[in-house]
Amino acid sequence: MENFTYFTPTRYIFGRGTVDRAGELTRWTGCRKVLVVTGMGSAVRSGLYAKVAASLDAAGVAHLHLSGVEPNPTDPKVREGIDMCRCEGVDGLVAVGGGSAIDTAKAIACGVPYDGDFWDFYAGKKVVEEALPVGVVLTIPAAGSEGSGNSVITNTATMQKISLRTESALRPRWSILDPTLTFTLPPYQTASGIADMMAHIMERYFSPTTDVEVTDRLAEGLLKAIIEEAPKVIRDPADYQARANIMWAGTMAHNGVCGCGRVEDWVSHFMEHEISALYGVTHGAGLAVVFPAWLTFMAGRRPAKVAQWARRVFDVQSHDDTTAALEGIEALKAFFGSIGLPVTFTGLGIDSPDIPQLVKNLHITKGEVIGGYYRLSAPDTAEIYKLML
Amino acid sequence: MENFTYFTPTRYIFGRGTVDRAGELTRWTGCRKVLVVTGMGSAVRSGLYAKVAASLDAAGVAHLHLSGVEPNPTDPKVREGIDMCRCEGVDGLVAVGGGSAIDTAKAIACGVPYDGDFWDFYAGKKVVEEALPVGVVLTIPAAGSEGSGNSVITNTATMQKISLRTESALRPRWSILDPTLTFTLPPYQTASGIADMMAHIMERYFSPTTDVEVTDRLAEGLLKAIIEEAPKVIRDPADYQARANIMWAGTMAHNGVCGCGRVEDWVSHFMEHEISALYGVTHGAGLAVVFPAWLTFMAGRRPAKVAQWARRVFDVQSHDDTTAALEGIEALKAFFGSIGLPVTFTGLGIDSPDIPQLVKNLHITKGEVIGGYYRLSAPDTAEIYKLML
Repeated sequence: MENFTYFTPTRYIFGRGTVDRAGELTRWTGCRKVLVVTGMGSAVRSGLYAKVAASLDAAGVAHLHLSGVEPNPTDPKVREGIDMCRCEGVDGLVAVGGGSAIDTAKAIACGVPYDGDFWDFYAGKKVVEEALPVGVVLTIPAAGSEGSGNSVITNTATMQKISLRTESALRPRWSILDPTLTFTLPPYQTASGIADMMAHIMERYFSPTTDVEVTDRLAEGLLKAIIEEAPKVIRDPADYQARANIMWAGTMAHNGVCGCGRVEDWVSHFMEHEISALYGVTHGAGLAVVFPAWLTFMAGRRPAKVAQWARRVFDVQSHDDTTAALEGIEALKAFFGSIGLPVTFTGLGIDSPDIPQLVKNLHITKGEVIGGYYRLSAPDTAEIYKLML
Repeated sequence: MENFTYFTPTRYIFGRGTVDRAGELTRWTGCRKVLVVTGMGSAVRSGLYAKVAASLDAAGVAHLHLSGVEPNPTDPKVREGIDMCRCEGVDGLVAVGGGSAIDTAKAIACGVPYDGDFWDFYAGKKVVEEALPVGVVLTIPAAGSEGSGNSVITNTATMQKISLRTESALRPRWSILDPTLTFTLPPYQTASGIADMMAHIMERYFSPTTDVEVTDRLAEGLLKAIIEEAPKVIRDPADYQARANIMWAGTMAHNGVCGCGRVEDWVSHFMEHEISALYGVTHGAGLAVVFPAWLTFMAGRRPAKVAQWARRVFDVQSHDDTTAALEGIEALKAFFGSIGLPVTFTGLGIDSPDIPQLVKNLHITKGEVIGGYYRLSAPDTAEIYKLML
């Protein structure tokens, strides 16, 4: 186990009927005038935005609205938000939506009190030391941004997704998690979110660090719970209990508890980001394609941890590590297939992927050799992309 | 799953060589003059207190010392600490030790800024709204107080152990967890700590609330990790990796994550407190005696969850729930025995326990009918005490 720090000062308010507490929680963080950030319109159409606004009104918190944050959120929207906050003297953010709204709110939160360009934080030139408080009303369990200190924004100039990771500066101060808000998510979006949260766990699980039994067992337990609950939410989108378990799993998957004490991997995310950038696929669906291929490559190179995962998560019995690993990967593919996710490029709707281009973009962005679990060069990542055919 | 809130704003600093950060962390909480609370002398003898003091000096934090906190800490020490803090203008606490030092520091922390008697909080007459910041340098993984908002103090007038639970007001602001500090713990104390942390998980796990798959799997995973690592620390007290896993498990066992979304039980703790009060046994060792008896009673009354626990934690295969439950209980007893813990009154050194007195004290203190998982009257708890013979 490696030395680590773990600090998650987000107050989670979980369950039915909790949206009405948005105003009180905003007051608790000391805010008097907030910018409410929403996505492409569903929060407005469903009446959720109005509920949040009413709760803020009741608590005496003034509010402005920044709507229209797109999936894979971009810098112009961040700049628009920063300008609004500065002009209007806003002292806090409330994101109502999924990862895109939350990540945009976080970028605005650190950009407002900073004299320079907010990209400085994302480029690693500056460390976030001050940020407006961010609150969240979550509608999509997937990105885990409601509990993380991270934010991903796409630079429209380069079309690169750029990640900012903070220990705590950008963790939401509070997050309302009401599973009923997820009843209306379409099955494909639900399933993609499930693949995303599983990937967040596995990116941390596949680590070169040994002797991390506690963190391993927590990660395996979360994966088992997700695999148990996922078919229920696909079968019945209004199954409250299953939705509740999936929602809480998505938060725990990415609030850092599965990474404590170890080096993490994150290559599958990097590889997926390149597919998304080139072909515009849904992030979680892309991960359902990338992860089995990455695991298959590892089954041939460093099978022991893959075999442990196969045995503990999928109850695979084989004694030989490589065999066990491959059986686990088949089980993962079958699971993704069962909830309607693709596991190949073709399934994603990409019949002739430009693998050389994907590999080139990947290594330009991320470096010549990448990955925490196993160091991958361009020929390796090319081989992994080919395994997705 | 029930609605819940979860808020754990403790900053954990985990690993070798982290003690030197005590001063910097104290400054981070804004404190300039702190009371350092220690136990019966081992922190002073080992040189740990001097290290913490040097770190505070280096950070420019003035400090006073309250030493001699006994196991099962009592109110006179709390009052002594409150007086010292008030006289000397102390603005924070640093506990160096295990649960006793930490719980005393927490009681002082809420007592100092309060006009009335600190017992008001423990008696439920007042809610803690203000408390001095508490920091922790942990030396005993067991009580979990380094991550919890709780404190247990014994009232010397009545010899009752009284618990205070807060959502966040008394959670330590920071906790330094250096596994090397636990190398010198004697085997019996190590094993008792392990039983205590397992009990903290199981008190939450055995719940009438259904559909808590995520929380169940996290709890089961933690138990499995503890069972895997415990024999290693008993075999080799200086096994850093095993000590690290046990230390982190002890924190996760009691910081609330295993209770999210459900009613908890806590009868085994109540029953053990009465044994401790009457016979002065070590809390964790007492729990190793109580829990198997409580589980055996439940195997006959409400076996399903016990069977799930037996199958998932001890890999019991039996199809029949009661059989599986009983097999799991035998496995738990064997585990406790293997790390040197008793599982009967006799093993605790109590040959003729006064069961009627234990039952009387229990129900006077806790009520006529007790327990979250299954409601127990006096004849029931008498039966459970008899199962410990």
